[in-house]
Amino acid sequence: MKKNGDKALLPAGLQDLLMPAAAHEAEVVRRLIDCFSSEGYDRIKPPLLEFENALLSGAGETLSNQIFRLMDPTSHRMMGLRADITPQVARIAATRLQKTARPLRLCYGGDVLQVTGSQLRPERQFTQVGGELIGVTSDAADAEVIVAAASALENVGVKDLSVDINLPTLVPAIAADLSIEPDLARDLRVALDRKDAAEVEALAGKHATLFLKLLHAAGTAEEILSFARTLDLPGTARREIDRLVAVVELVRVQAPKLTVTLDLVEHRGFEYHTGISFIFFAKGVRGELGRGGRYNSVSVDNIVEPATGFTLFMDTVLRALPKPKIARRIFLPFGTRREESGAFRAQGWITISGLEPVKDDRAEALRLSCSHLLEGGHIHELGTN
Amino acid sequence: MKKNGDKALLPAGLQDLLMPAAAHEAEVVRRLIDCFSSEGYDRIKPPLLEFENALLSGAGETLSNQIFRLMDPTSHRMMGLRADITPQVARIAATRLQKTARPLRLCYGGDVLQVTGSQLRPERQFTQVGGELIGVTSDAADAEVIVAAASALENVGVKDLSVDINLPTLVPAIAADLSIEPDLARDLRVALDRKDAAEVEALAGKHATLFLKLLHAAGTAEEILSFARTLDLPGTARREIDRLVAVVELVRVQAPKLTVTLDLVEHRGFEYHTGISFIFFAKGVRGELGRGGRYNSVSVDNIVEPATGFTLFMDTVLRALPKPKIARRIFLPFGTRREESGAFRAQGWITISGLEPVKDDRAEALRLSCSHLLEGGHIHELGTN
Repeated sequence: MKKNGDKALLPAGLQDLLMPAAAHEAEVVRRLIDCFSSEGYDRIKPPLLEFENALLSGAGETLSNQIFRLMDPTSHRMMGLRADITPQVARIAATRLQKTARPLRLCYGGDVLQVTGSQLRPERQFTQVGGELIGVTSDAADAEVIVAAASALENVGVKDLSVDINLPTLVPAIAADLSIEPDLARDLRVALDRKDAAEVEALAGKHATLFLKLLHAAGTAEEILSFARTLDLPGTARREIDRLVAVVELVRVQAPKLTVTLDLVEHRGFEYHTGISFIFFAKGVRGELGRGGRYNSVSVDNIVEPATGFTLFMDTVLRALPKPKIARRIFLPFGTRREESGAFRAQGWITISGLEPVKDDRAEALRLSCSHLLEGGHIHELGTN
Repeated sequence: MKKNGDKALLPAGLQDLLMPAAAHEAEVVRRLIDCFSSEGYDRIKPPLLEFENALLSGAGETLSNQIFRLMDPTSHRMMGLRADITPQVARIAATRLQKTARPLRLCYGGDVLQVTGSQLRPERQFTQVGGELIGVTSDAADAEVIVAAASALENVGVKDLSVDINLPTLVPAIAADLSIEPDLARDLRVALDRKDAAEVEALAGKHATLFLKLLHAAGTAEEILSFARTLDLPGTARREIDRLVAVVELVRVQAPKLTVTLDLVEHRGFEYHTGISFIFFAKGVRGELGRGGRYNSVSVDNIVEPATGFTLFMDTVLRALPKPKIARRIFLPFGTRREESGAFRAQGWITISGLEPVKDDRAEALRLSCSHLLEGGHIHELGTN
């Protein structure tokens, strides 16, 4: 029921959720947010539309091309439809919640709009659920957001969940430690991402041995943590790895059933991240269920705070879940008293009240997709539904 | 916490909901929708943005000036941000749900955006929850939507709820029955709305007695139903009144505690309504909690179906409710195992995990607005919070 049947009626990438998909999405969003709330993440709800500059602060800059822009007839300033909620959270943290004690735990659930879909993901409206942990740099904070997101996903029924933990700051740290100049460092990073050994060797020069090793820096947590011990790393880079080891250890203690993989080099999609980052996958499910990591929470007036957080993508999360159960629907013939229909609802039934007398209540109940019929004070289960 | 403290940061009429307001709104929306779902109203979720013409069909036309418009870079067609959800429901009913059995019961909860706020209501983003009952004309249908909306409002805790039932089609029916020409009929209607007796008398001519009586056609259900019996009404108008009597009777039987008032003449805000309409109020609460009534569900390709429905305005609904209860928050010192924190959450606690060792856990718990502290395996209630 999810895809749009009459495509011409809606712009590309925008769709109606019908029954039971819309109710299912709302239910899963609620349950995820209930999990985050119970871990102290307070729900906030920024507006769908705000001044453009606030949406572009910090990591928001990466989505600049994706923001629908509108002139505000009141202020004559440009506004944008949010393409991401994290920059709004940064604004709120730096202004109205500036004096609230840190660490600040916030969560949200809502829709974002983007100007163009991608080939892989043609949608232009997404439902996102996320959490941000602001004002704290400890290892335990990095572990908390990973474990909180993973537990919530498992709690709503995602099976075979795995998290791929990334360290997008490692290669820049090595380059800085080795005094590799920035342009060369960037080219090296791109070559590493492309797994282009010849290019890596050519660019790395006397450091080729180390950088060529990094081509193989993705795999299970066990493999990569052993591998990392074999790397001859300069000071800052070694500290990055030590921190990773500590966080992975915390995650494994707190979420022993979660599959953890590591990738020390990947940086695509993590351009604004300042430390440990991660992506959630579920076995057999196309796409990412969510992602996040450490970043600087930058408000529109350039208040900067260390932060980590995650965003879950509801379209993928819903694909990872079994279909929702259909509730029992009972047809109550015309004239059934409201006390009686209310008693059914109180027991969890969906009641469908007849609004006119009909010749055949049973046929009417079937026509209205009911599973049961009230007849002469008795509940009849209907054969087909 | 609801109003915007740093006004300059957000465009006028747009605001952040913080804690606990955002969670409270989401919870009340959920409970309202649960009520409607249990009466067979299936939840749907149309997109925030769609082609402009679909938003302008039927009653959508009244909000034409309130729609933010955007060019779709993909189709090069104009899109609009929805200012109302009912036209989207009409589109869905006429297309993807065209073959679904009638009556079709649908509900929704979501945000709408409007270009300008009013003096009374400066907001430009509203959360609306609504239900539509499409494809049925019976008295029981009109009563069902009134009673369903009223029960849901009472269920979430609205006290002293009343519904003002209106019959915006009565004056046009009288005018048509009496062959009063359309321009004169419209002037009469405006004069009646303004309660301008002199103008009504002048315009009504030989029918002045009847129209002057209508100046007093607002009051309690008892008063106005007796009053209506004294009116010497032509055929169609009499049938409108008979229908009103039948619907009011059904509402009073099904919702005996609901205060019902009637207004036979008011038509402002009901320009697109085709029969019995209504507005919900709560004693002592400024503004309407919701409104609705009978209308023609008109899709963008002019498929027309009889319908009735309602929209609830969450800002006013929340003003009518007591403040949400604050959950117990317990501070769990750094190093508390996740099994232990999970056990607290399973019992309904909000857990705040320490992310670093601190000198004084009690002071830290207080600083983080916790009501309780776990210390040496025991729960301590904290004096101040």
